[in-house]
Amino acid sequence: MADAKSSEWMEKIVALCKRKGFIYPSSEIYGGINGFWDYGPLGAELKQNIKTHWWHWMTRRRDDVVGLEATIIMSPKIWEASGHVSTFSDPMIDCKTCKGRFRADQTHEIPCPQKPSKMVSECHGEKTAARAFNLMFKTTVGPIESDDNIAYLRPETAQAIFVQFKNVLETSRQKVPFGIAQIGKAFRNEVTPRNYTFRSREFEQMELEFFIKPDEAVEAIHGTVAQPAGPGHPGDPQPNWGWRMWHQYWVEERIRFYESIGLPRATLEEYWQKPEELAHYARVCVDLLFKFPFGTQELEGIAARSDFDLSQHQRFSGKPMTVFDEALKPAWPNLAPAKQAELKERYYQNRLRYLTQMGEASEAAEKLAREDAEALTKGYYVPHVIEPSAGVDRLALALITNAYAEDQAPDDKGRLESRVVMRFHPRVAPIKVAVFPLLKNKPDLVRKALEVRDQLRPWMNVFYDDAGAIGRRYRRQDEAGTPFGVTIDFDTLGEKGEALKDTVTLRERDSMKQERVPIPALLPRLLEKVQ
Amino acid sequence: MADAKSSEWMEKIVALCKRKGFIYPSSEIYGGINGFWDYGPLGAELKQNIKTHWWHWMTRRRDDVVGLEATIIMSPKIWEASGHVSTFSDPMIDCKTCKGRFRADQTHEIPCPQKPSKMVSECHGEKTAARAFNLMFKTTVGPIESDDNIAYLRPETAQAIFVQFKNVLETSRQKVPFGIAQIGKAFRNEVTPRNYTFRSREFEQMELEFFIKPDEAVEAIHGTVAQPAGPGHPGDPQPNWGWRMWHQYWVEERIRFYESIGLPRATLEEYWQKPEELAHYARVCVDLLFKFPFGTQELEGIAARSDFDLSQHQRFSGKPMTVFDEALKPAWPNLAPAKQAELKERYYQNRLRYLTQMGEASEAAEKLAREDAEALTKGYYVPHVIEPSAGVDRLALALITNAYAEDQAPDDKGRLESRVVMRFHPRVAPIKVAVFPLLKNKPDLVRKALEVRDQLRPWMNVFYDDAGAIGRRYRRQDEAGTPFGVTIDFDTLGEKGEALKDTVTLRERDSMKQERVPIPALLPRLLEKVQ
Repeated sequence: MADAKSSEWMEKIVALCKRKGFIYPSSEIYGGINGFWDYGPLGAELKQNIKTHWWHWMTRRRDDVVGLEATIIMSPKIWEASGHVSTFSDPMIDCKTCKGRFRADQTHEIPCPQKPSKMVSECHGEKTAARAFNLMFKTTVGPIESDDNIAYLRPETAQAIFVQFKNVLETSRQKVPFGIAQIGKAFRNEVTPRNYTFRSREFEQMELEFFIKPDEAVEAIHGTVAQPAGPGHPGDPQPNWGWRMWHQYWVEERIRFYESIGLPRATLEEYWQKPEELAHYARVCVDLLFKFPFGTQELEGIAARSDFDLSQHQRFSGKPMTVFDEALKPAWPNLAPAKQAELKERYYQNRLRYLTQMGEASEAAEKLAREDAEALTKGYYVPHVIEPSAGVDRLALALITNAYAEDQAPDDKGRLESRVVMRFHPRVAPIKVAVFPLLKNKPDLVRKALEVRDQLRPWMNVFYDDAGAIGRRYRRQDEAGTPFGVTIDFDTLGEKGEALKDTVTLRERDSMKQERVPIPALLPRLLEKVQ
Repeated sequence: MADAKSSEWMEKIVALCKRKGFIYPSSEIYGGINGFWDYGPLGAELKQNIKTHWWHWMTRRRDDVVGLEATIIMSPKIWEASGHVSTFSDPMIDCKTCKGRFRADQTHEIPCPQKPSKMVSECHGEKTAARAFNLMFKTTVGPIESDDNIAYLRPETAQAIFVQFKNVLETSRQKVPFGIAQIGKAFRNEVTPRNYTFRSREFEQMELEFFIKPDEAVEAIHGTVAQPAGPGHPGDPQPNWGWRMWHQYWVEERIRFYESIGLPRATLEEYWQKPEELAHYARVCVDLLFKFPFGTQELEGIAARSDFDLSQHQRFSGKPMTVFDEALKPAWPNLAPAKQAELKERYYQNRLRYLTQMGEASEAAEKLAREDAEALTKGYYVPHVIEPSAGVDRLALALITNAYAEDQAPDDKGRLESRVVMRFHPRVAPIKVAVFPLLKNKPDLVRKALEVRDQLRPWMNVFYDDAGAIGRRYRRQDEAGTPFGVTIDFDTLGEKGEALKDTVTLRERDSMKQERVPIPALLPRLLEKVQ
């Protein structure tokens, strides 16, 4: 994975992030706090651009996805239903000699605090057996600190979507299939935060839960369930899609999303989780990986999660999570009895498997599954879900490492010098365009430059810079990843005649090509690139 | 404050928020969790519009403010420096009889849990003396739960800005005066959350810390410090502004911001905190209040906080928070000796007052203050700060209560019926425009309507609705607060001749006026209103 060259490369990137104000260690003046990172002025803009673009892509440009913004602290019962209270943990051992606590699976790579020449696994300290350490941050809500008042910082944003599924369904004029999208902070008390911002304790997620009909319902309504014809994007959603088509659709949509912000398909790797890696309820899960300097790591997972999540909340809350399907009810009586029996049996077996895995006694499970199968014939079911779940911080880091480049550029005297350039896609670049008056002590140049700045500013993030030689100003913007630079010079003022009057030099960051553009053409020209 | 009529009004608003998907109780299917609220599809868009508009207004449209995005969990030392660990608390008493815990200042209004006919203050339960209950949520970071690993969920976003002040200064090419803006979640373990989303335990803040020169430095450089000439906006910032001008400027800027999203000055009230209400370090604080149905309450506070915050972090971290002022250093030697002595003495007294209030022994305080005054003469000082601090959730609630209206509108047969309409300013309205094909079973109408939808969608949030009579569709959008409706009818298709071909009906929510607009004119017309 990570070799010496890539770790040197990573060091350069970390240094640039600090130097340019992308990322700082949290609480740095107090010695920092392990696993927490702040975003400086450029980083905050980059993150915001990622989130805005995701939100547009996933909700606003679609009719079938709506947004949600839920709290970080929720009822602790949610995490019992989701399984996080019982199973979201790492195995830890304690050393009675040095009082240290270590991940049981990492004792061979962590030096003993008292005898650093030996690893924890080799030292003579007396160790406890491995015990589960829950990764959720705990707190108490209300004035009394007691076990009754324990709450958790959410370890993922997804659960809030399931918990509010019915509220959203009833208030948003959506029908299955439809999705609920959410962006927000999540927290995991990682034992060993590492790889810069990649595995941190506080991070941000962008999650979509896309609710679909169970295949049995699709088949009852449409006669058949469409199956993937091969790799690639399957096109616009169709009513006869089951979970396989929807899953393929979302994998391909997500790849298109990454392409649209400058991570070409070639920079991504699709990893299909092996059956033994899958959660018991998941039918399939594809990870989209990115080759970071420290190794190839997950950016996003797209899972087909069956009806597990809503079913769990139905069981734990006692509130029905079923929907009524207006197309299913009238379709059912028209099916041949054999087809009815087949679909009912399949649905029954799926429900039974879920209930049994969740520990229901076999008699109770059979009874409940029979009721569920009966409800299906009346048009009721618990929706299944496809979940594309992405991390904002790891995507920001992927964009940063992908953007970082070193090349040669001419200085003000035309001599080549080495340059660091952040080749961000214009859509996510923190600053879209820098506006430079050639000289800051010529009021006419400055006035014109400010006019251009104010014309562009309502539409995009503009940086105005009048300090230093123009080459140095270009170089600073190259390091910030600003895709365009606009210089106002004496030609702009008409000193070389009418032909060049009110034109500016537009310089492109990557090619360093410069061309004259009339000021009125500037906004449409740039908008086309940055939107 | 709140009377029966306004509480009935508030109930209607709460019901609409639930019904239309603005706001839901958090974790509702599990019985809720007191003091936590989720935003549904319309609420999430509303909040996002508020935040985006604030971010543009406060940072992107300015050259002198940059953004920051820091973590919620930070080093606990920050909250020692800020005073939150020692003083951010409510006084609580415990009842040994019923085991209840109550706010000491509310015992006369809370019924005894065992004898609800009496208030806690009157019942016979044996009470403890009042003790301070800290309002910060506590958690532990890392695998070991011990006092050494305690951390807090930030009770405000401001401190992260102070802590990262030097990093931002060094990486952003800014010089004092300049500001750092941040939006993010904050948490307060309120004993009694109330007034719907107004006082909740998890909320979001939008804070600017605007760093300015101390008045002594301004006077040294410019000879005098400009003073407010009267009420109103003082215009563009000038180099000779001291804290009074900057404070007035930000109060007026913030009012302009509220006006720009549909809260006219008349809906706001300026409350100047009385000297005895001010924090000891604050020179002045203006609260902007809004008349909620449950009483007139604070939306935002704009405080002149002196150099308290950076000074505290300098003392607690041992890291210098001083800046070097390129204009001050050369200006100082040119001052008359009497002026030098006067400014130095004033600066010395200010620093001495701060240090003494912070509990430094008088000798040490005098020594430090002398050093600070000496540093001033060399061009160094700790910047002062003006802080406009606003709450996203309370602003959302203010916009919702301000928007809610009931009036009369004609139904499809022209009969007047009562209508609920959310009169949001187009800039913050969750949906900007709804697009309606007159009939959903006419493919030509639908195709044209989808064309219009797709033309507008990259630029604004569009809702497409083809279900039900057109009057009912208008009514649904009125309740969602959508300012514009566009109907595609047979005239659009050219069935009444060329003159009306490719025109649509544009309907305005508040006036309900309708007019024919050519499709190509639609986007510019709407953009002008919603941007």
